[in-house]
Amino acid sequence: MKLSIERGTLLKAVSQAQSVVERRNTIPILANVLIEAEGSEVHFRATDLDIEVVDKAPAQVERAGATTVSAVTLHEIVRKLPDGALVTLTDDGANGRLSVTAGRSQFNLATLPKEDFPVMASSEYSSNFTADAPVLRRLFDKSKFAISTEETRYYLNGVYMHVAEADGGKVLRCVATDGHRLARIDADLPAGAEDMPGVIVPRKTVGELRKLLEDDDTKIAVSVSETKVRFAAPDITLTSKVIDGTFPDYTRVIPQGNTRKMEVDASEFAAAVDRVATVSSERSRAVKMQLDEDRLILSVNAPDSGAAEEELAVAYGDERLEIGFNAKYLLEIASQVDRENAVFLFNSAGDPTLMREGNDTSAVYVVMPMRV
Amino acid sequence: MKLSIERGTLLKAVSQAQSVVERRNTIPILANVLIEAEGSEVHFRATDLDIEVVDKAPAQVERAGATTVSAVTLHEIVRKLPDGALVTLTDDGANGRLSVTAGRSQFNLATLPKEDFPVMASSEYSSNFTADAPVLRRLFDKSKFAISTEETRYYLNGVYMHVAEADGGKVLRCVATDGHRLARIDADLPAGAEDMPGVIVPRKTVGELRKLLEDDDTKIAVSVSETKVRFAAPDITLTSKVIDGTFPDYTRVIPQGNTRKMEVDASEFAAAVDRVATVSSERSRAVKMQLDEDRLILSVNAPDSGAAEEELAVAYGDERLEIGFNAKYLLEIASQVDRENAVFLFNSAGDPTLMREGNDTSAVYVVMPMRV
Repeated sequence: MKLSIERGTLLKAVSQAQSVVERRNTIPILANVLIEAEGSEVHFRATDLDIEVVDKAPAQVERAGATTVSAVTLHEIVRKLPDGALVTLTDDGANGRLSVTAGRSQFNLATLPKEDFPVMASSEYSSNFTADAPVLRRLFDKSKFAISTEETRYYLNGVYMHVAEADGGKVLRCVATDGHRLARIDADLPAGAEDMPGVIVPRKTVGELRKLLEDDDTKIAVSVSETKVRFAAPDITLTSKVIDGTFPDYTRVIPQGNTRKMEVDASEFAAAVDRVATVSSERSRAVKMQLDEDRLILSVNAPDSGAAEEELAVAYGDERLEIGFNAKYLLEIASQVDRENAVFLFNSAGDPTLMREGNDTSAVYVVMPMRV
Repeated sequence: MKLSIERGTLLKAVSQAQSVVERRNTIPILANVLIEAEGSEVHFRATDLDIEVVDKAPAQVERAGATTVSAVTLHEIVRKLPDGALVTLTDDGANGRLSVTAGRSQFNLATLPKEDFPVMASSEYSSNFTADAPVLRRLFDKSKFAISTEETRYYLNGVYMHVAEADGGKVLRCVATDGHRLARIDADLPAGAEDMPGVIVPRKTVGELRKLLEDDDTKIAVSVSETKVRFAAPDITLTSKVIDGTFPDYTRVIPQGNTRKMEVDASEFAAAVDRVATVSSERSRAVKMQLDEDRLILSVNAPDSGAAEEELAVAYGDERLEIGFNAKYLLEIASQVDRENAVFLFNSAGDPTLMREGNDTSAVYVVMPMRV
């Protein structure tokens, strides 16, 4: 194998590959990236056995071939090379070394045989559709904060992407919950997604996927089967196993009859919650909301460190209500609001509360109260 | 006590105080800041028993008085208050609470009696002099990287500030070393410093001092005794115990007869060292320098991960030399060079190497070689 590639192009391709590689792993080949050169392209492939990423980049390929080297070391070297450098990768197959040269720098990296690299088996996908990057970005960005980190409830360790009914039509929906809060985000159903099986996309995959969605103009080809999901941008393909479990029936958790409505400026609300929570004990982080005619009092009372109280002007016309929440959960849902006021819908101090942006029902959040 | 103070002024004063407070300490009062209001000023005092910092700030004092509250909590609250807010601190002495109000926010923080706060005993200082902030900044910034972290060699856990002879005159000198590398930085001797006892300024004090030196126009009043050192900017006074030990005779470590001279662009050199070190094993980080007529080859050979080599054009006219160094040490001293080329003076592969900026002898670095 022998190829030359521009340093910036190489850095971009290797960056994504090395981020999939687990820092601690006991199987040496999993620390490596598989480099395959042919035609006028080079592919960089990395995997942790659950996720596989393949980056394509244009290169001057003098001699086709393939080898594997440490993804982290290659990334570090390329990162430190001067911008604009032309990098040449050469593997003569003889001494188990990949030569990396650029200007007056020369590196010889230990390789492992390409045959040992575990390429993910190709699959049949039952659904294929195309989505714009901003659509997927919204679906995952607004839901991922609610992903559970409890390993025992593995079926909550991801975002449940599926087709659902909403307002009499079908939507593409992402849901995440950890039992304390829940996010339900809808988007128009793309053509071809109608029969998609619901899949739980693992947390790490959501993180890696995010890097494919930076550019507003990118179109992502999505393929889904019962066991795998694939997101393909023009230069990067991310394939991932999905979580083998059943996502719970979240619809029962979303309150339908909450009628006590409070409307508040989301950023003012978040700032005030953040301030009063300063004195709360680190464990509970409980914040009390006292609602009265167009007035909200946020308060915290921590015997050890002190007390805090802040008043906010809100729109509220129902009867007096006192309800407590975890400050972190309130902050997280308030920070999802990016366009309009936050609308809270309460029932009683013991019932789950619903939040949305204005009257938009395509992004709905539920948060459980706590005793204060 | 009752006072009002602008949020920005308060934040600045409390920031410095809370950074001195140790996050984990078993004596509750040490987590607190002592607030003393009188006249048209408020003082914020914090200590870890080794360092004491006092911040002065202008305030509208309605009722003089003093109390103590958690430095970290107060800092967090003030940080989260909106910019431009007027903050009122009230302690009526009755309920053991300090009230902090700003706009519609109100906090009540637990206090501890001001009498329990350990104010550092005042001292007689044998030397008093004034130095410009940039002079002290250079002395400490260029030496602190070499401070030892070995607790057993506690007398190396700081910067040795003292008066020394250089070129027939007296200078104010800062020296730090960990046995592997050494930095010796000189400045013109300020009037009044002639008889200053040499003191070892602890690492944490050096860090706190740095915050007083940001502004080029600040004049710092320095006071030194055998046991304490004090740095006073107009609004902040930092008092610190010095390390009770004898700094070793560093002059014997600084080579006098090194004649093999290499001159190199410092940033090019640092970038090249950084690149070749990528493949080195994490423990040794050894880099080999091969010097020949106007040519330097930097190389690393790590059996596990691979090899790296880079050639640099340098000015060198002496005989061939091979010498090895810890890459981290080379990078650190090269990054001290800010004006001119780095000049290295070698003797043999087993002897300490000296580095300076051009022909300037007011900042000199020594680094021990290692076998490669």
